[in-house]
Amino acid sequence: MSDKPHILIVGAGAIGSFYGAILKQAGCPVDTVLRSEYQVVRDNGIRITSRLGDLSYQPDHVYRDGDTPEVWPDYLILCVKVLPGANRAEVIKPWMGPDTRLVLIENGLDIERELAEAFPANPIISCLAFIAASRMEPGVVEHKAYGKLIMGSYPKGIDEHCRTLSELFIEGGIKVDLTEAVVGERWRKCLWNTPFNPLSVIANGADTKTILETEGGEALIREMIGEVMAVAAAEGYPMDESLIDQNIEGTRKMPAYKNSMALDYINGRPIERDAVLGNVVTIAQRHGIPVPHLNTVLVTLKMRARLEGCE
Amino acid sequence: MSDKPHILIVGAGAIGSFYGAILKQAGCPVDTVLRSEYQVVRDNGIRITSRLGDLSYQPDHVYRDGDTPEVWPDYLILCVKVLPGANRAEVIKPWMGPDTRLVLIENGLDIERELAEAFPANPIISCLAFIAASRMEPGVVEHKAYGKLIMGSYPKGIDEHCRTLSELFIEGGIKVDLTEAVVGERWRKCLWNTPFNPLSVIANGADTKTILETEGGEALIREMIGEVMAVAAAEGYPMDESLIDQNIEGTRKMPAYKNSMALDYINGRPIERDAVLGNVVTIAQRHGIPVPHLNTVLVTLKMRARLEGCE
Repeated sequence: MSDKPHILIVGAGAIGSFYGAILKQAGCPVDTVLRSEYQVVRDNGIRITSRLGDLSYQPDHVYRDGDTPEVWPDYLILCVKVLPGANRAEVIKPWMGPDTRLVLIENGLDIERELAEAFPANPIISCLAFIAASRMEPGVVEHKAYGKLIMGSYPKGIDEHCRTLSELFIEGGIKVDLTEAVVGERWRKCLWNTPFNPLSVIANGADTKTILETEGGEALIREMIGEVMAVAAAEGYPMDESLIDQNIEGTRKMPAYKNSMALDYINGRPIERDAVLGNVVTIAQRHGIPVPHLNTVLVTLKMRARLEGCE
Repeated sequence: MSDKPHILIVGAGAIGSFYGAILKQAGCPVDTVLRSEYQVVRDNGIRITSRLGDLSYQPDHVYRDGDTPEVWPDYLILCVKVLPGANRAEVIKPWMGPDTRLVLIENGLDIERELAEAFPANPIISCLAFIAASRMEPGVVEHKAYGKLIMGSYPKGIDEHCRTLSELFIEGGIKVDLTEAVVGERWRKCLWNTPFNPLSVIANGADTKTILETEGGEALIREMIGEVMAVAAAEGYPMDESLIDQNIEGTRKMPAYKNSMALDYINGRPIERDAVLGNVVTIAQRHGIPVPHLNTVLVTLKMRARLEGCE
């Protein structure tokens, strides 16, 4: 048996599978909890192609949703999408031991709070992933580029659990930036995601080039980034105005890019609307900060969800 | 030969066919210019079922786009959709005689100006139609309800041509309200159309009930009506704030309703984006009036048009 910490991945899509593979490379026992992919992963393991090499692995335990864990994980790594109506605390409850550290590798803002309330005794490590990876078919993942994590203890600081985990990820082959203020980093990432992702959805899956080159498109994105920035400042995370230019210029330099929410929309999958946009508007309203552009997009998405009978 | 004024309908869809029928009922010679429906109307005339009776008629001349008129019309009634990129002045140029009065029965704001510039010597009569009518198949129209016109000379006043035409419409069986300020009436109609129509499109064809009952939906519509009202006021058409409540309450009392732009969108037809929304935003920008909600919807529609290769 390894003396390395025991890992459990909940939500083994592209992201969960990849970061599980990295910790496997670092020598950790890595388990997974699966639903539809249970049998294929049990039979064939998780196949991952990557510029880092062949990262394919057989999880130490392949659990099915509803099973009971044979060992409590030291780190439970949660990589499910944060969807309206989904109760993540219920999903992970059977797998959370008394000393399990909960690790979130998920998008969005204010996504830790409900879990911190549900598991007040368990440390929470909040991570942002900068990665391009896709699930090609059940149990098969293609890691295309990047992989860096920004990581910190929630709500702030960097505790020993966080340090230990970051060293394991680095040992496994990726970059990690530790931060004392992970919530601030979430706001910084949302400067891009909160405008671009939902707007691309109501624009029927528009890519970054379409968004920026449409008449009025760049100006609209700038307004939306400014709104996110104003809310972040009210939450105690002031940012420099120059980040608006940086986000625009950085996006212009990329090839035309369809973000993950646009792809989810195009492929008929649910979108992380509230994690990426709704929570920002809720926090804005709490502070009395006007966010008319963000709110127009949010309410439009809610109308579409209602029309589709989802809400 | 009738001594009644000679009418030419350009754009004989549901609206044009219906109002042509009304003037035929009043005893006017009525001609039409057609494209795809030329042969069927030449063979069978225009079939119209209506609560007013059977309004079917054979136009006196059925012209094909590209023909030369045998007589100059006294009134050219233009009922085509006002679409981005469509040049209405070019369309009607061959049919406009030196004394022809140009009559617009079309939706939107600031849709007269380009025609007034193209035909400075011809009087313009601007009309708003309150009607439910549908084109069922080529040459066949069903008039379902209403039919009233609000009519005035453009840019303002009520001249003799306008009076004559209104009397003919009344003689033909419909209600006409003459107005000294038809542009103000357009603003008043746009209090509803400008928010509801384009929003229903980016909400993927949402009906009025979906729009108002979605969380935040009514508040968003109220903001948008307020923005239209502020622009109208800057243009010299101040309106009472109570119209916001009236529009909301009136809409709540209707059964769930998909507006014509939503239906155009659902059926893959082009939408009157700029006539109903884009022109309002342009005028707002000229006055320096912030319209963030309207602008978000407009730019989203432009992104969609760009994505579809339309712009």
